[in-house]
Amino acid sequence: MTAYDPSRVVADLRELAARTGGAEGSRRLAWTPDWLQARAFFRESLATLPVEIDEDEAGNLWAVLRGEQPATVLVGSHLDSVPKGGWLDGALGVMSGVELIRAIAAEGTPPVTVAVVDWADEEGARFSRSLFGSAACMGTLDIEVLRGLTDREGQRLPEVLADHGVDIDNLDGAQRRMADVKAYIEVHIEQGPILEQQGLGIATVTGTKGIERERLVFRGQAAHAGTMPMAMRRDSFRAAARFALAIAEIGERHDGVTTVGQVQCWPGVVTAVAGETRITMDMRHISADSLKAMFDEAHHAAAAASEAEGCTVEWEHIFRIPPMPFHPELLAAAHRAVAAVEGHDFELPSGALHDASEVAREIPTVMIFSSSIDGLSHTKEEDTPDEHLQMAADAFHRTCREAIQLVAQGRL
Amino acid sequence: MTAYDPSRVVADLRELAARTGGAEGSRRLAWTPDWLQARAFFRESLATLPVEIDEDEAGNLWAVLRGEQPATVLVGSHLDSVPKGGWLDGALGVMSGVELIRAIAAEGTPPVTVAVVDWADEEGARFSRSLFGSAACMGTLDIEVLRGLTDREGQRLPEVLADHGVDIDNLDGAQRRMADVKAYIEVHIEQGPILEQQGLGIATVTGTKGIERERLVFRGQAAHAGTMPMAMRRDSFRAAARFALAIAEIGERHDGVTTVGQVQCWPGVVTAVAGETRITMDMRHISADSLKAMFDEAHHAAAAASEAEGCTVEWEHIFRIPPMPFHPELLAAAHRAVAAVEGHDFELPSGALHDASEVAREIPTVMIFSSSIDGLSHTKEEDTPDEHLQMAADAFHRTCREAIQLVAQGRL
Repeated sequence: MTAYDPSRVVADLRELAARTGGAEGSRRLAWTPDWLQARAFFRESLATLPVEIDEDEAGNLWAVLRGEQPATVLVGSHLDSVPKGGWLDGALGVMSGVELIRAIAAEGTPPVTVAVVDWADEEGARFSRSLFGSAACMGTLDIEVLRGLTDREGQRLPEVLADHGVDIDNLDGAQRRMADVKAYIEVHIEQGPILEQQGLGIATVTGTKGIERERLVFRGQAAHAGTMPMAMRRDSFRAAARFALAIAEIGERHDGVTTVGQVQCWPGVVTAVAGETRITMDMRHISADSLKAMFDEAHHAAAAASEAEGCTVEWEHIFRIPPMPFHPELLAAAHRAVAAVEGHDFELPSGALHDASEVAREIPTVMIFSSSIDGLSHTKEEDTPDEHLQMAADAFHRTCREAIQLVAQGRL
Repeated sequence: MTAYDPSRVVADLRELAARTGGAEGSRRLAWTPDWLQARAFFRESLATLPVEIDEDEAGNLWAVLRGEQPATVLVGSHLDSVPKGGWLDGALGVMSGVELIRAIAAEGTPPVTVAVVDWADEEGARFSRSLFGSAACMGTLDIEVLRGLTDREGQRLPEVLADHGVDIDNLDGAQRRMADVKAYIEVHIEQGPILEQQGLGIATVTGTKGIERERLVFRGQAAHAGTMPMAMRRDSFRAAARFALAIAEIGERHDGVTTVGQVQCWPGVVTAVAGETRITMDMRHISADSLKAMFDEAHHAAAAASEAEGCTVEWEHIFRIPPMPFHPELLAAAHRAVAAVEGHDFELPSGALHDASEVAREIPTVMIFSSSIDGLSHTKEEDTPDEHLQMAADAFHRTCREAIQLVAQGRL
């Protein structure tokens, strides 16, 4: 019997990094040869076990260990990375799941089916559509939007996916994979600084924050920087600056996060008052009520900032996802696992989206986080102490064991 | 005898616009065929008069009417425009000067020499070096900087100018043209909204404002918009926003103008806190003391904004020119001319640079402004009521007559 071995998870992660990374960081961009190489390592790792390995209609890679019941405990994450990305983002969850299958398979036929999935194109780094594979399985993709997506080289998403055997007119078939899934567990690095600041290695994740993402277009009047008196200006950038400071205050006061990350001024020259300024706003909160309050206040703040500068403001919707609180029974299991491994009950919401955000729409879900050094991710500097990676894999395994029991008992 | 006829100035401006403009605006970009066509019209307008017409070593186009003394009253402005520019910017001053030469020449040999100059490449729209021709005549060009300038198509300034007979290693020769110049008078559109707001057609210009132009680089820490708590952020864009609002307040309080016209954030994506934000600052004042106070306060404001957001700030110098107050005797003459034409003594500083800014470094100078409809310039919508154009030409002519007397009497 092969007991679950967290050190083997770390060894597998290092092997994966050796095959698909380097001095410039990870190269596992979805729908590229390096990504296929990572997936080959996944298949290889499970090759000698009694599992069914195949891809679904959306390109998600599954390894299924049939149990006494079709009811399934699903685990997973994603092997794809952003360009020059980190070695742990996504890979930790997949390789922890591979080790789970090894440990369970070694014990004979499990009471319920256990599966690990490598979700396709979680990052959306090439076509700007994140959570692709998990969204396909949950039926939340907009096919018409997908049809129009291209990468920087002008390659069209439908054609690139077709080269990987994925027909975007046939994605719905992937939803059948979820029919028997009763629980989903994902372990991931935090990608933020909170656990490190708390001096902790792991934590229970309470859910993923809801997001409101908008583009704001402030319009005033372009004017000569030398000849237009201050009192007569309608300066769109000043309106945007007022808004940016107001939105930061709103985020702080509600204990959420708000960000203005992209700014463009027109005409955008040193000698001209900006007639038009476009900014993006991203706001997140784990509470739907708080997120709504923040969003309403942002509208008031934008109107006030515009009025103060004699400008107008227009909102262009970019993206929205509601908060996804995780399942109480699985949260309790995760809390017990974290307490057993590190001896505390610290929990936090995830500020980043994960495939778990999609799955949690309909299926009981929970996540475990490991710490991230300096909170860094999506960069080659991304790292986590080995000890914390092993603690995370350990807590993940314990949580999975409880989930298997809960599903076997029909309690999920 | 041909008396000075302001209506002929307007007729010439319309003819020039018909030849070198259209629905898209003026096309008199320096060092292009359309600009040469405008200059051909200048030569044509003076062809039958006893004037010497030629270009100096910097490509400035001169028409000189020799008087009883070599001591010279110089008038002028520029025929070049920005792409899709207005029909009056620069052209008003040149065509008013052409009419002056006609009127003076009709009276026989004047007591002093009178000359009109079409300064080359005032706008700097192609190679980003404005006031080219007038700066050459005043010896303030940096030849090494010129050597490295290219346009958007990658054409190098030295080669383009060589095609127009201008050798950048021989620009100094143009300075000889100024040896006998005792006074310089330029009439121009305001390019701002102040005269229109005052309900006036023309005004005396007291000088051109000094300019401090800098790039500020705020540096914080790029971070994930979802996972980095507000309290731990070092948001460079928030620092820039604080500075932009502070600098506006500084401009208002000192009765100057301050502008942040260009903003760039890195990484510049909706999901990331901006690790670095670059902005431009342009500040102007007619008083050197006030400009210095504003500049000092801007440094304090930038330091305070950076500190408030846990960022650093670095200043990169772009451009500086001191205020250029005009000459008291010529200002008095201009005031009398404006009073005679429109019956008031309204005066204002120029927020925009003009060739007069260069000439005023060493030579008694004054300017007259006409109003600008809606304060617009550098656009095809640029316009001024005909009545105001004629009043401006009239006041310009009266000022020139006084200048000729002052020079003839050895008082300038």
